[in-house]
Amino acid sequence: MADAPELFDELDPPPRLMMGPGPINADPRVLRAMSMPLLGQFDPAFTSYMDEVMRLLRQLFRTENRWAFLVNGTARAGIEAILTSLIEPGDKVLVPVFGRFGHLLCEIAERSGASLATIETEWGTVFEASRIEAAIREHRPKLVALVHGDTSTTMAQPLDEIGPLCRRYGALLYVDATATIGGMDVAVDAWMLDAVSVGLQKCLSGPPGCAPITFNARVEEAVLRRKRIERGLASGDATPANAAPIQSNYFDLPMLMDYWSEDRLNHHTEATSMLYAARECFRIALREGQSVRIARHELASRALTAGLSAMDLGLFGDQDHKMTNATGVVIPGGLDGEQVRTRMLDDFGIEIGTSFGPLKGRIWRIGTMGYNCRKQNVLACLGALDATLRQGGHACTPGAAVDAAIAVYRTAGQ
Amino acid sequence: MADAPELFDELDPPPRLMMGPGPINADPRVLRAMSMPLLGQFDPAFTSYMDEVMRLLRQLFRTENRWAFLVNGTARAGIEAILTSLIEPGDKVLVPVFGRFGHLLCEIAERSGASLATIETEWGTVFEASRIEAAIREHRPKLVALVHGDTSTTMAQPLDEIGPLCRRYGALLYVDATATIGGMDVAVDAWMLDAVSVGLQKCLSGPPGCAPITFNARVEEAVLRRKRIERGLASGDATPANAAPIQSNYFDLPMLMDYWSEDRLNHHTEATSMLYAARECFRIALREGQSVRIARHELASRALTAGLSAMDLGLFGDQDHKMTNATGVVIPGGLDGEQVRTRMLDDFGIEIGTSFGPLKGRIWRIGTMGYNCRKQNVLACLGALDATLRQGGHACTPGAAVDAAIAVYRTAGQ
Repeated sequence: MADAPELFDELDPPPRLMMGPGPINADPRVLRAMSMPLLGQFDPAFTSYMDEVMRLLRQLFRTENRWAFLVNGTARAGIEAILTSLIEPGDKVLVPVFGRFGHLLCEIAERSGASLATIETEWGTVFEASRIEAAIREHRPKLVALVHGDTSTTMAQPLDEIGPLCRRYGALLYVDATATIGGMDVAVDAWMLDAVSVGLQKCLSGPPGCAPITFNARVEEAVLRRKRIERGLASGDATPANAAPIQSNYFDLPMLMDYWSEDRLNHHTEATSMLYAARECFRIALREGQSVRIARHELASRALTAGLSAMDLGLFGDQDHKMTNATGVVIPGGLDGEQVRTRMLDDFGIEIGTSFGPLKGRIWRIGTMGYNCRKQNVLACLGALDATLRQGGHACTPGAAVDAAIAVYRTAGQ
Repeated sequence: MADAPELFDELDPPPRLMMGPGPINADPRVLRAMSMPLLGQFDPAFTSYMDEVMRLLRQLFRTENRWAFLVNGTARAGIEAILTSLIEPGDKVLVPVFGRFGHLLCEIAERSGASLATIETEWGTVFEASRIEAAIREHRPKLVALVHGDTSTTMAQPLDEIGPLCRRYGALLYVDATATIGGMDVAVDAWMLDAVSVGLQKCLSGPPGCAPITFNARVEEAVLRRKRIERGLASGDATPANAAPIQSNYFDLPMLMDYWSEDRLNHHTEATSMLYAARECFRIALREGQSVRIARHELASRALTAGLSAMDLGLFGDQDHKMTNATGVVIPGGLDGEQVRTRMLDDFGIEIGTSFGPLKGRIWRIGTMGYNCRKQNVLACLGALDATLRQGGHACTPGAAVDAAIAVYRTAGQ
């Protein structure tokens, strides 16, 4: 056996200010939490932490739901756990698509066997509730699946009317709130969202790789019909399914519920360090206070957009429905957007986002998320963009962007 | 919005010595790696780390395979990614089951639509190659799925003859080596294993939540037949499938290959901190040298079993095929196994493992894995067990266990 390995150096990531649409810089308190010693998964000290995570997460989601826990994977793992556990082959699912992540919901729903109906709106816009209602009336879906904030377009779909609408027509409503949780309001119970999944790596200022979810009794009932117990685990035989079995073991919500309940029936081995990270993310967000946090993101959005406008840059999309934590910026004609991004990274250590699909090459996406959503970063990003654009030949008044953003903060007393 | 949250205290996990079948104590160097600052997923510094992870992982797996990367989930996520990407509905799959994790392979294969054939052997034994060959001849499977070391029974299935056997009959061979990698030899190419998945939380001394996998060109060819590109990502439309589409988006190997290749086609957002952890786990294992590492686990196994025998405890199962990093111990009649485990944890801070299924209440499982596999821990565990058993009324000579283990280490010059 060859024992002359190629080992590479110790980790030494370069310092970056991550002002893209996520992941962003993790809060140092979260990084510290991840360096804590591990515990066995059934150690009473660890199961207590699991219970605490559930209680913190309920508060973050503003819900009384019994079920609020972590799926061990990146944000799309949470999406797939909910959709694949809910959707039986042939179930009608309606997805209103206003960006890339709506397409992702379609993709996952289809792979779960959904009979899919979609409505689309131009990237940069969101849906009127009446249009979604018309589609529900036409298709009578079992499930409506919707993105809250789609970072691909930086738009946020208003949700407060959609939940009651779905109840009226007997549909379940799933929402992907990955990009908004911790930065914009996500009122699970008040908005009647039946199931929600998120990630840590945006406004919660944690690492990617953990998908907090919640769902209510309506969803619980639907997935428990499909429950069965893993072979080799119970003393007896497998419980026969009384409905179409869930096609994934890893994403089987009834099994995850057994694991997160007092029964603690073994499924996967909970990702200890990521649970530590999630617990700390939730504590930090709740300690600041959600209304304070939401206001902080709103202010940053106003300051950033004022600065961008002062540089004569166009803002992408319907500004009445822009996410407060992400901003689309039209790339001025004659500039190579990727070259600007590379310069920002090389000269200033600042990362801003590129774009996908129909927006590729047309806009940059700037995030003001969580730990990074603060005056100093908004100003640093604008200053760097100002210099980089002028170097690239874009005509704008040096310093005007930073001045405009400072003015917004000053007006707000900061 | 109520802003009077219930926050709980800062993390403060109690100090534990985790001598169960995993997870175990993480190497402090791995914990430190996880506290490093994040990077954007397409930051050149981060994609370099991804490439380094692939190169380290190939060495760990002793393979020339192009594909060696991480699945973002716990160990069973790696299993499901491989099985669900390979198995098309109706495909014949053979699973030789010798413990709980063989049942898990059955479960995941069935959910992927497999036409399943199984052979079973009593828990505590492994299969003769000839028995597996007979089953292959009978069932002519497309895929044989097999566990290497099954911690539920502490048995390790010899694999060197199985790979050539599968080639002879045109079957693919998948192996779950979660419990052996980094502690026992896993020679992917030499043994002709077509696909292998593992986890970090056993002999690699990392946290649970990351599933390194590798597969060869035979598997690549099989899964690429099922490839399609996610909607909303490419500029054009989705590529139509030319075979049964893979039922999971998250576990779609062709998409993961595009993400880990030079194309870097976006799929999930790689779990940054867990990748840092994996990179450090691999470096640590390779730096020690695999043959040194394997010998270290063999010695610990001999010392531990000598100590257990000196306490008049029975060793569970076929000792010729026992894993060197896990040992099953028969619970003496009249003792409550769970009470002993609780006492070990409360009095000594030492965790040993309970059991599942047919072995529930019959054996404990003691791990000597990775970072924890060292003389001081073997002695601490034996000393604590000695005291705890005597307190519980088990007749054994005080100190005999520790003395016997020390003798083994002394004979080995340690």
